[in-house]
This record gives sequence, C-alpha cells and structure tokens, in this order.
Amino acid sequence: MSQPTLSSTASPPPTKIGVLLFPGFQLLDVAGPLDVLNILSRQHASLSLSIIAASLNPISTHQDTYSAFSNIPSNPRFSQSIVPTHTFETAPEDLEVLILPGGFGSRSEENVEGLVEFLRGYGKKLKWLLTVCTGSAILAKSGLLDGRRATSNKRAFGWVKQQNTSVTWIAKARWVVDGPIWTSSGIAAGIDMIYAWIGSIWGEETADVIADSSEYERNRDSEADRFAERWGAV
Amino acid sequence: MSQPTLSSTASPPPTKIGVLLFPGFQLLDVAGPLDVLNILSRQHASLSLSIIAASLNPISTHQDTYSAFSNIPSNPRFSQSIVPTHTFETAPEDLEVLILPGGFGSRSEENVEGLVEFLRGYGKKLKWLLTVCTGSAILAKSGLLDGRRATSNKRAFGWVKQQNTSVTWIAKARWVVDGPIWTSSGIAAGIDMIYAWIGSIWGEETADVIADSSEYERNRDSEADRFAERWGAV
Repeated sequence: MSQPTLSSTASPPPTKIGVLLFPGFQLLDVAGPLDVLNILSRQHASLSLSIIAASLNPISTHQDTYSAFSNIPSNPRFSQSIVPTHTFETAPEDLEVLILPGGFGSRSEENVEGLVEFLRGYGKKLKWLLTVCTGSAILAKSGLLDGRRATSNKRAFGWVKQQNTSVTWIAKARWVVDGPIWTSSGIAAGIDMIYAWIGSIWGEETADVIADSSEYERNRDSEADRFAERWGAV
Repeated sequence: MSQPTLSSTASPPPTKIGVLLFPGFQLLDVAGPLDVLNILSRQHASLSLSIIAASLNPISTHQDTYSAFSNIPSNPRFSQSIVPTHTFETAPEDLEVLILPGGFGSRSEENVEGLVEFLRGYGKKLKWLLTVCTGSAILAKSGLLDGRRATSNKRAFGWVKQQNTSVTWIAKARWVVDGPIWTSSGIAAGIDMIYAWIGSIWGEETADVIADSSEYERNRDSEADRFAERWGAV
C-alpha cells in the first residue's frame, strides 16, 4: 500500500478528537491523555470526544487470554471498563485527532486486525495521530509509520521493533514527533506527550496551567528517557 | 456521631480493594491509582477490585449542572464513563481498602449524601481509606477525618477547608498519612500516594518496579508541594 499522508496544520486548533479502545488496553494510556484533555475542554467548549471500539459494549482493561499473547496476563478480578460512544462503523468521519493506546491487548491478533483496518481507512483524514505505549506497535502494522521515526514502551521494545522493520524505532525518547504522528514511550509517558502536544497547539502557558491544575510535574525533555536503559531497549 | 476507628495492620497485605464513583469524578483521580494497582494485580492474583456507585449505570466524568456547584463546568461533549460492578447496597462487606476520588462532582450535595452515608456505614470495617483530590472533602463530611491530619486539591483548598473545620488540613503536602487514612493532593498526586502506599505494604522495590514498568517518575517526598503556593493554599 502507498504511505498515507496525514496533513498537520498549525491552525485552527482541532476540536474533534477520538480515542480507540480494545480489550486489554492499558488504563493510564487512555486516561492520562484524556484527563488532561478533559481539563482543556472546560475552557474550550467546542472540543468533543468520540470513544471508538469494535462494538458499543463496555471495553475492559482485562483481555481474555484465549486471544492474548503474553506471559504476564492481566487479572480478571482487577479490571475497569470504559463505555464506547461509537463503533468502527459509526465513528464520525470528520475527526481531526486520533489517540491510540497500548496495553497487552495490542498483542492480540483479533484486536489488531480491526484496529489496523480502521486506521488504514481513517489515517489520511486525520490531522494528528497520537499513540501511547504499544499503541505504536498497532499503528506500525497499519503501514502508517513506514519510513517514520517512532518510539514505544521500553519494556516491550524488542517485541515492538519486530512488528515492522520499516519504522525507524527510537529507543531513547520520552516521545517522538514525526510530522503529524506523535508516539510516546510506555504508559505514563503519554501524559508528558499530551502536554507537549497541547503546548504546540494552544501554547505552553495553556499546557502549564492545566498541568498545575492537575498538580502534575511535567517531564519536558522528549529526549530524556532513563527507561530505555532500565529495560535494555538501547 | 462517635469517630469511626479504622484499624490498620502491617500484615497480611490486603486483597479486597474498592473504589467509589460518582457523576463528575475526575478521571485521573481514579485511573492513576487504579492503573498502578492493575500492574500490581498481575503479580498478585488474589487482588480484586470492586467499583461501587449509587447504581450500576455507567458513571460519567461529566456531571449534570443541575446538581453541581461550580463555575467551571465540565464539557458534556468531552467525557468518559466507567462501569460500576456494585452498588452501595451490594458492595462486598469484606473490603479492606477503599479509594475515594474527587472531582467537581464532589461539590454536588446529591452525590455527597449517598457517599457519606456509605462511608459512615462502611468506615469502621476498612483497614485503609485513601482519598485523591477533593475526595477528602467528601470524607471530611462523613466525620471520618475529624481530629485527623489531611490534605486535598490545592486549587480548591479554600473550599475544602470550609467543609469541616474539625480536620487539621495540611496545605503543603503531596500526600498525608494519618493512621489508616491516606489523603492526597490534587489529581496527579494520587499516583504518588498510591506508590508510597504500595511501598509501605509490599515494599519499595515492588513499588519501584511498577513505576519503572509504567515509565513513571515518582515524586517521593510527601512534603514537597509547590502547588500549595502556586494556588495560594498556604
């Protein structure tokens, strides 16, 4: 397939944001960025969120082991479920921003198949595409990262790199920006990425006021990443 | 009412954890601590989570304004809903730990009434009670914080203090421990509190491995808190 060409523009700021969910998503991959955007949306009433999944059934952080490849399964007695607002078929056609989380469910072929099909159909329409953690492994399988620089979860980095060798995987990075595609390192790194992304669009002062309201200490340097070495990704 | 007496013990580690939800909860207040516990629960299969609310209907981060007191309303087009597993009436009777988030919904009398009634009935059974953000304002109304030291969201600190003057409110603190009750400062501070709490029970090494897996940089000093001054709480 030809490489999709997303087009990022500096203005106007986006208003239509979507997030993809799948069974076995990592809760903080989703909730970290979304809660920052929750606070932003109080000042920007035009912001809207679509939560998109294969069906409208609540999506659990627990993945059924039958469809999973993992030696550290999630605990079925300890999980949370978030309610989608749209399916892949009913997703608004005019989303400008899409957030793709990771989690152990990213290793499920069943999950990835539907997500990749959606991403291939949707990719060209987006202005920004943001992944957290192993969400970049899913995106890599769609071809949308071919020839681009990207990062991912550092503990899973070896596995991620195997998913697509046409991607320039950057081990030591809190997050990586390549044109309209932002990819973050594992789990909590998504919070720092979303603050940097908000700063790039609404300004650093806006990002800082939200971070202070959230009582969050930002990691501002996208290249500072002790976890790459910690987990042997470099 | 007489002051409830929770009893905290060093061993054995707890297995039965609950979280309370109400409309207008702050997503990261809930998801920050729970996702850390999600990772802990992979190694500790006996851990279980009950998500408790007034009904089994999905609970939204958006609160209806009719029941809210706030000059910065949440955005109805930008919200997330989590599915409860139990109601106040059906909650397991043997929970050992309860987590109480905050959010603008903590200012709704309708929300607070049900939560306070549940907390008064349940408080004495618990070994630990943890609040995040303005969750401590709700807990204060239950009487369970009377005579204890506690902290809360720094931007809302003036309002929080008004809710119960029998509490010794500590402005400059990332989190405060008073016996079995742990209270954190605003939103993201709940993440640091849960790591410290896990460290106190399962050991600091366990807490650090989870933080490194989550690629989270812990704020380890409970007394370091620049947000108290930032928001005029001191």
